[in-house]
Amino acid sequence: MMETFPCELTQNPLRKIWMPCKKNGLPEKHISQRRVCMTNCPTLIVTVGLPARGKTYISKKLTRYLNWIGVPTKEFNVGQYRRECLKIYKSFEFFQPDNEEGLKVRRQCALAALKDVRQYLLLDGGQVAVFDATNTTRERRGTITKFAEQNGFKVFFVESVCEDQDVIAENIVQVKLDSPDYIDCNTEEAIADFMKRIKCYESAYQPLDEILDRNLSYIKIMDVGRRYLVNRVLDHIQSRIVYYLMNSHISPRSIYLCRHGESDLNITGRIGGDAGLTARGKEFAKCLLKFIHDQDINDLKVWTSQMKRTIQTAEALGVPYEQWKALNEIDAGVCEEMMYEEIQEHYPLEFALRDQDKYRYRYPKGESYEDLVQRLEPVIMELERQGNVLVICHQAVMRCLLAYFLDKSADELPYLECPLHTVLKLTPVAYGCKVEPVCLSVEAVNTQRDRPENVDVQRTTEDALHTMPAHF
Amino acid sequence: MMETFPCELTQNPLRKIWMPCKKNGLPEKHISQRRVCMTNCPTLIVTVGLPARGKTYISKKLTRYLNWIGVPTKEFNVGQYRRECLKIYKSFEFFQPDNEEGLKVRRQCALAALKDVRQYLLLDGGQVAVFDATNTTRERRGTITKFAEQNGFKVFFVESVCEDQDVIAENIVQVKLDSPDYIDCNTEEAIADFMKRIKCYESAYQPLDEILDRNLSYIKIMDVGRRYLVNRVLDHIQSRIVYYLMNSHISPRSIYLCRHGESDLNITGRIGGDAGLTARGKEFAKCLLKFIHDQDINDLKVWTSQMKRTIQTAEALGVPYEQWKALNEIDAGVCEEMMYEEIQEHYPLEFALRDQDKYRYRYPKGESYEDLVQRLEPVIMELERQGNVLVICHQAVMRCLLAYFLDKSADELPYLECPLHTVLKLTPVAYGCKVEPVCLSVEAVNTQRDRPENVDVQRTTEDALHTMPAHF
Repeated sequence: MMETFPCELTQNPLRKIWMPCKKNGLPEKHISQRRVCMTNCPTLIVTVGLPARGKTYISKKLTRYLNWIGVPTKEFNVGQYRRECLKIYKSFEFFQPDNEEGLKVRRQCALAALKDVRQYLLLDGGQVAVFDATNTTRERRGTITKFAEQNGFKVFFVESVCEDQDVIAENIVQVKLDSPDYIDCNTEEAIADFMKRIKCYESAYQPLDEILDRNLSYIKIMDVGRRYLVNRVLDHIQSRIVYYLMNSHISPRSIYLCRHGESDLNITGRIGGDAGLTARGKEFAKCLLKFIHDQDINDLKVWTSQMKRTIQTAEALGVPYEQWKALNEIDAGVCEEMMYEEIQEHYPLEFALRDQDKYRYRYPKGESYEDLVQRLEPVIMELERQGNVLVICHQAVMRCLLAYFLDKSADELPYLECPLHTVLKLTPVAYGCKVEPVCLSVEAVNTQRDRPENVDVQRTTEDALHTMPAHF
Repeated sequence: MMETFPCELTQNPLRKIWMPCKKNGLPEKHISQRRVCMTNCPTLIVTVGLPARGKTYISKKLTRYLNWIGVPTKEFNVGQYRRECLKIYKSFEFFQPDNEEGLKVRRQCALAALKDVRQYLLLDGGQVAVFDATNTTRERRGTITKFAEQNGFKVFFVESVCEDQDVIAENIVQVKLDSPDYIDCNTEEAIADFMKRIKCYESAYQPLDEILDRNLSYIKIMDVGRRYLVNRVLDHIQSRIVYYLMNSHISPRSIYLCRHGESDLNITGRIGGDAGLTARGKEFAKCLLKFIHDQDINDLKVWTSQMKRTIQTAEALGVPYEQWKALNEIDAGVCEEMMYEEIQEHYPLEFALRDQDKYRYRYPKGESYEDLVQRLEPVIMELERQGNVLVICHQAVMRCLLAYFLDKSADELPYLECPLHTVLKLTPVAYGCKVEPVCLSVEAVNTQRDRPENVDVQRTTEDALHTMPAHF
């Protein structure tokens, strides 16, 4: 039997993925799709809408989300190309429909951006490109669709429609006044010019139409997410994009991230496990109560993992909270409850592999940071829906959540500093997120182990433990 | 420090959830929300649409999904109330707008259904009720909204709009001809009568309107899912419902579920682990190849877990496949790779607790079936989106997936029979799913352990192992 069976398997030592042995099995390509296939072919997301409708906000946010869930994505902002091309912006007159020179430059910039899109999706390994421009005419959208067809890309349009003048004015104040275009203007001049820029597009604007555009795939976001029209969703990634956009909102709020109080295993330098809090950890929980009280937060939700140390921390707050299994700390598998010294002693190869690629490394019978991000996706989705939330979680989990909000790469993510007894207050601003670290001044052991210089599997124990934090 | 800290925690022995000790801690209600709060208050889902637009299909399917993910849900079909009230259906004339008697009966039936809705949501622990009727007038919907407000329920409308006469005709043939209303009719008579029934509603039909109904929460499904209008999604559960409905389709297809081939740990009666296939397991993989070939399936996708035994099985098929970590077998925690005899010997209390409530029981440092369902939700969502799929998975995983398709309760789920070397072909029909078990005639060890009669923690070893399947 053995000899006729197609192949034997071998396990990738870093990611612990089973794959066929090359010498006597089927060709490798047979298991080329190691993760759920998000897209059969690259996807081009195309924004549609008048200026100041949040197109760039949506583009940046979507790009950040898709990269975080592991889909290589890049945004291409045509306005940026125009600024690079022209250097100096004079006034709205550049955008007037009868400005031949303006039209020519803008067409060139759009083409330059599409050229870069092609490079990114065909040669640089990108899976999704976000083409951020007004694209207000059916003709322009037709050009883009044709370009996509020629290159084998799927197109998904994201239109933002809003007639609420307060929202538009707020958008201009939030993001347009800081634009390089208005660096030499006062506020009133800038607003007046930008309002005229919008006017330049209004007469030619052809919104996506239920009948005329019925063969296109799109989402039309109306009145900042009050209403959505969704047409012809074709695949997994389009479905995810729609779900994400429908859960996002722009109401002001803050998200507070922190870890549990210091635990009994923290102070002995052991990872994982399900220990309770030390005296200092309990002190932190009390300080957290005071901090939350002083912040005077409207309708705060509190979320914990299902581990003892986060629940003990939350109990001190005396308010209802929700337990998420998805917020549990990374599963260190066979290394659970071990000290780094012990991991180095018993699994030196594993320890070195982890240092070589900490994001993708999966503990034997445990998880990788990559796994953790997948597990945390529903948490992020619900955070997008919610208002003020305090998330009491764990070091690796907090790094993953923080990387999402701060748009950190997979390489940086596992080394983000998330010390014990420090709350990070995250507040959305313009296109990003403001971070305010609040140290609650209760001493705690340091648990941050930076990447050592030597990550060779042959390294000495001293080299392997070089960056290990001190413990009792 | 200890004495002033609000409380100590104790772990629920069955579900392994940490909770405050009652005697010296805060009241229990402080952590009443042990799972993510799906709904703040009960939700009433109300269908809208002409007859034969798939309202009952949507209601039943949504109810099945919500129950499966753990949200207690029940459908209330007003047509069913009418049939129970009148016993005998004569003809479409009953539904004519000027039939006073008919109107009276129908109003009474709607009120009776709403009364039962109230009972279910306020007294019987229901979280979602699906009120399945035409609800084609704004007045009727106003009555329902008022009823919901009075009882503190949120309302979410689901409208199905379709003008494609082929789809409507197909729907009538698929589900209406089997209705008790037409038990004494021939096909032509039934179709003709039903078409007239539709006519009775058409003149008074007021679809949900973007302007007039802008304050309602709803999804309008157009042309069987080609287009969606989504308005004012208010909470987590409404968002999940929208995502689910947007991913569902009704194109014909089959889903094939099977386990990996017999593994080395299967034959020694050990659970969990990451073993490879036995000679018989490999033989099954080859027979699976032949079976799949003979079925001649259009565009079949193959999914596996990330465990060796499912990947080895898939490799024999010689086609691309996707590995899902979410499809990995239930994590038996400290019991991984143990025989039932050993679990009984080392953890007799755990073993008995598992038999007492196998669905909710969580292995120490492992998972419960309840956990598994949460982990499998994205798999179900993607299965809803896909066409023909072969899922090569594991016993507990297959039980969870099967329970979804066959609408099995949490009590039945962990005991569903999913023998090795047997493929279940699932094909959607009318409101349900046809199951065809195909035994590929390769011998395999039996791994089904039924619930023993004695589940007391004090039971004898003999009682505990009474239903254990034989192994080498």
